[in-house]
Amino acid sequence: MTASPIPAVWTERHRLHDPGGEVWVGVPIPGTEVVARGDLIRDALAAAGFEIVPPAEHDPEHLHRLHHPAMVEYLRTAYDAWVAAGYPEEPGQDRVVPYVFPLPQAVADRPFRLPAAPSARAGVYTTDTTTLIGPGTYRAALAAADAALTAAELVLAGAPAAYAACRPPGHHAGRAFFGGSCYLNNAALAAQHLRDGGRGRVAVIDLDAHHGNGTQDIFYDRADILYASVHVDPGAGWFPHFVGYADEAGRGPGAGANRNRPVPPGCGDGPWLEAIGDLCAAAGACDALVVSLGVDGAAGDPESPLGISPAGFARAGEALARLGLPTVFVQEGGYDLERLGGLVVGTLTAFAGAHP
Amino acid sequence: MTASPIPAVWTERHRLHDPGGEVWVGVPIPGTEVVARGDLIRDALAAAGFEIVPPAEHDPEHLHRLHHPAMVEYLRTAYDAWVAAGYPEEPGQDRVVPYVFPLPQAVADRPFRLPAAPSARAGVYTTDTTTLIGPGTYRAALAAADAALTAAELVLAGAPAAYAACRPPGHHAGRAFFGGSCYLNNAALAAQHLRDGGRGRVAVIDLDAHHGNGTQDIFYDRADILYASVHVDPGAGWFPHFVGYADEAGRGPGAGANRNRPVPPGCGDGPWLEAIGDLCAAAGACDALVVSLGVDGAAGDPESPLGISPAGFARAGEALARLGLPTVFVQEGGYDLERLGGLVVGTLTAFAGAHP
Repeated sequence: MTASPIPAVWTERHRLHDPGGEVWVGVPIPGTEVVARGDLIRDALAAAGFEIVPPAEHDPEHLHRLHHPAMVEYLRTAYDAWVAAGYPEEPGQDRVVPYVFPLPQAVADRPFRLPAAPSARAGVYTTDTTTLIGPGTYRAALAAADAALTAAELVLAGAPAAYAACRPPGHHAGRAFFGGSCYLNNAALAAQHLRDGGRGRVAVIDLDAHHGNGTQDIFYDRADILYASVHVDPGAGWFPHFVGYADEAGRGPGAGANRNRPVPPGCGDGPWLEAIGDLCAAAGACDALVVSLGVDGAAGDPESPLGISPAGFARAGEALARLGLPTVFVQEGGYDLERLGGLVVGTLTAFAGAHP
Repeated sequence: MTASPIPAVWTERHRLHDPGGEVWVGVPIPGTEVVARGDLIRDALAAAGFEIVPPAEHDPEHLHRLHHPAMVEYLRTAYDAWVAAGYPEEPGQDRVVPYVFPLPQAVADRPFRLPAAPSARAGVYTTDTTTLIGPGTYRAALAAADAALTAAELVLAGAPAAYAACRPPGHHAGRAFFGGSCYLNNAALAAQHLRDGGRGRVAVIDLDAHHGNGTQDIFYDRADILYASVHVDPGAGWFPHFVGYADEAGRGPGAGANRNRPVPPGCGDGPWLEAIGDLCAAAGACDALVVSLGVDGAAGDPESPLGISPAGFARAGEALARLGLPTVFVQEGGYDLERLGGLVVGTLTAFAGAHP
């Protein structure tokens, strides 16, 4: 590749999603998945000479391939229903926040109905109180999905690689749940799009500091899409807490097509890159690659303790490039606003320099 | 019965549980299940001439008959683990509050582990963010269970009826979940105690304004304990939202031994008493009775729209008395601090006057 040949799909529509903070253990906090992230990434890409491409719009019906239609409909309508119901609208509180949840042991084997109250409906699909829905959340999530689909289309049209600056991120969104600041699974949609475009087997390699429980959920039963993730060990107390362990390896036809490589807090570049090497080896037999490019593993990021250096991210980009696969990068996390843009550019540039 | 022959089991240990508010749709609010409730009930009973009896202490092992030992252990240790982990301790925030929950569709058929972080562990057994755990919550919940067990023992020893002034309440606590300001299921423990004491079949009639999803859960498969509840229709948007519908009738050996009579918001005395008549008819073949005596259905209560009058509660007490069964009353909700004590005394007095 020549320098910076990777088209970067970006849209200002990400700004429509301004969660205005989150609620953690009952305490309203500012949150880290902020509007500035999307603009900082764009500015860094533009300054580095990347071509910025707008996404094409896609019919939301597309989402139903991977997400339950009822969840999509909920995301589309939740904010308006919330406001219509007259819930708290104090400053910073005009967002959909759940408070009651259908725990499996409380509803299992019982007749289950969607609750009537918007306050209770808010807990049906949301795993947590940190993933709020504001007036523009659904439209921004659609735009992020459009960006991922557009990047996949660029690759299907012949680009060796493309990058989608998705915001909000997506890898914690499963078939019928969302959480962890994610609403729709951009990376999963890109992978499915590559399959639909004729790629026989697709690998999703997830570099985000946290396990992509949504992507794992969506593809857990499938052999045609490998999900492979390196992330901070949930057993050490990290989100998504309930899944992301090494022994989750897929099910039925998907057995063996799910690979989790948890790494310990503070591991730094060495163990992280070794895990990525394993994930790349597993992806060798695939025909296309989606990279869930979270850069929140970086040293100094407020959301992870991994301590990966910028050079580590560049080495990761090179390792992915050596697979020689058509590659779609999809932005996930990364919350150190000082370093975010540089980490994304550095990873993509290293990839471009090493791609055959 | 002579006037006020019902012994009232009460302990000041309820004061150990001071939730200091709750979190509803992400907003910290004062809450209504306050310490004053327990003292107001006692004062009203004493003023009306009821004998106040302290509870006997019971080995917590007793709880394992109906509650999962892991949940009991969690309740015992959660606050200390929370403080040890250094979670927020700003005023009103030194309580265990969950933020992430193991939704069934997010963890079903996956390896499931108790999360390492206390912040995530807080969502494993709790259905909501309104049921906080403070330094004395477990001890107060134990004392409330002791009160219910003691009331059952008084009845087993020959008292026609006994009342347990339980606080915190219990009917939203299931085998392996707790919520709705409830931690341990006092009424279910009393019913089991009556069974263990030789009563062949026990009815639990639940007058609380909300469905007792915990009690239903605990006895859903059993034929020997009937659960029968009148409550505001969850389909109209009321807690516990996910269950409490009329077609939940028990399962397996318990089929037919669960009876829900939802009533509409604003129904007033007529439909409510008609439903209670149906529940009493269903309980006719039982050998003992536990009454989950919530008085939050009363007109003016901040937690329900039922609009029941004091005379309605008296009529309910008389209807229960006409069953002629040895009866254990267990306090559940009731949040109108002006009327709470009078409603409890009025119901018990009407019962005593009509009991054979």
